[in-house]
Amino acid sequence: MAKRKKTTIVLFSGDYDKAMAAYIIANGAAAYDHEVTVFHTFWGLNALRKANQVDVKKGVLEKLFGKMMPRGAEKLGLSKMNVAGFGPKLIKHVMKKHQALPLTQLIETAQEQEVKLVACTMTMDLLGLQEKELLDGIDYAGVAAYLGDASEGNVNLFI
Amino acid sequence: MAKRKKTTIVLFSGDYDKAMAAYIIANGAAAYDHEVTVFHTFWGLNALRKANQVDVKKGVLEKLFGKMMPRGAEKLGLSKMNVAGFGPKLIKHVMKKHQALPLTQLIETAQEQEVKLVACTMTMDLLGLQEKELLDGIDYAGVAAYLGDASEGNVNLFI
Amino acid sequence: MAKRKKTTIVLFSGDYDKAMAAYIIANGAAAYDHEVTVFHTFWGLNALRKANQVDVKKGVLEKLFGKMMPRGAEKLGLSKMNVAGFGPKLIKHVMKKHQALPLTQLIETAQEQEVKLVACTMTMDLLGLQEKELLDGIDYAGVAAYLGDASEGNVNLFI
Repeated sequence: MAKRKKTTIVLFSGDYDKAMAAYIIANGAAAYDHEVTVFHTFWGLNALRKANQVDVKKGVLEKLFGKMMPRGAEKLGLSKMNVAGFGPKLIKHVMKKHQALPLTQLIETAQEQEVKLVACTMTMDLLGLQEKELLDGIDYAGVAAYLGDASEGNVNLFI
Repeated sequence: MAKRKKTTIVLFSGDYDKAMAAYIIANGAAAYDHEVTVFHTFWGLNALRKANQVDVKKGVLEKLFGKMMPRGAEKLGLSKMNVAGFGPKLIKHVMKKHQALPLTQLIETAQEQEVKLVACTMTMDLLGLQEKELLDGIDYAGVAAYLGDASEGNVNLFI
Repeated sequence: MAKRKKTTIVLFSGDYDKAMAAYIIANGAAAYDHEVTVFHTFWGLNALRKANQVDVKKGVLEKLFGKMMPRGAEKLGLSKMNVAGFGPKLIKHVMKKHQALPLTQLIETAQEQEVKLVACTMTMDLLGLQEKELLDGIDYAGVAAYLGDASEGNVNLFI
């Protein structure tokens, strides 16, 4: 039996459009039977936040970061044409028209297809994010686990 | 006969400097006899737009997107120091002085070297771009074709 | 004896957080005995600048670029939440609290671990940067050398 191909994506960006690209590639690769990992670090962690506020104890700085950063996939901005939040509304409108899946559903699809979603524990610490605040079914790991996956990989991307 | 190496670049960004980096790597890889694909998605599609306005039928939103986005490679902004369009002029001045090729010529060179330039059909739909508006000699494909190339690749980059 | 794995990172970005991500991955890969190269191009070159001003002869434009661009790793801004320089201070404060290494030390660690740090000579020319202005122990090369490393690589990233 042939070895399954591996696709490993670092999602560093917290932009809606970049996260979409990451998940479209991830879901495509899973459909072609790749073993797929999306490793969320820095601002990419925000795509994994639950949309509702979660009751956790935090220091002052961590609370500040928590408030400044978007809470969940549908709150992310665009990397371009983000003027006054206009761009995201526009693109979501167009996506609906073209029956493209919104980011939250792309993430759900990924989970259904057993794409491994990993949150980088080191940057969670830096940004003051706790496990309870992130989606269920996420793995927690660091750069060593990422390198383990990536160094066996066929498609490695940093987004 | 040894198998040719493959370089596959996703050009997501619509920044002049990032597109330059993508095409410099693509042309370098082609010179070393790699099979090279540049897959343009989201804002990266703007690098493939014809500089002149093309007469196509569009809805209101698609027209708006078309006007908001830069028309062709030489209209792209910089990812840094883009203040009031000053940066692009400055960098093009310096490029001329150092006899570096402008982006339009990097793209022409890529086509001459048989680098495969692909436009992502899904994001063309989203941004309301039509085939007539893009350069001649472009391929049209989706994420499946990208993954086919990338999963056999030696150098895979997301830019 | 098994061949050592290769990790090759293009650092294009001049953002503090992205450079951190690049060096954390580079140092991790070196710890796992990969042969690691970080190829600095465009704004990523600023991470290699010496913090103090270096006395070199430059034309007017090159002086202007030199003044506009951050001088060294600790002067870089953030890709997100960079409002009025507030973000970088905040993140450095949090990093200290969590005993995360600042970028300058991540770069030192990389050099100690024999990560090959390369400055792209073509973009040094464009941005008017000279060897004397960059850290000691840096290699100087172009896209051909990069492709030589990358095409043998296991992990290739563009950051």
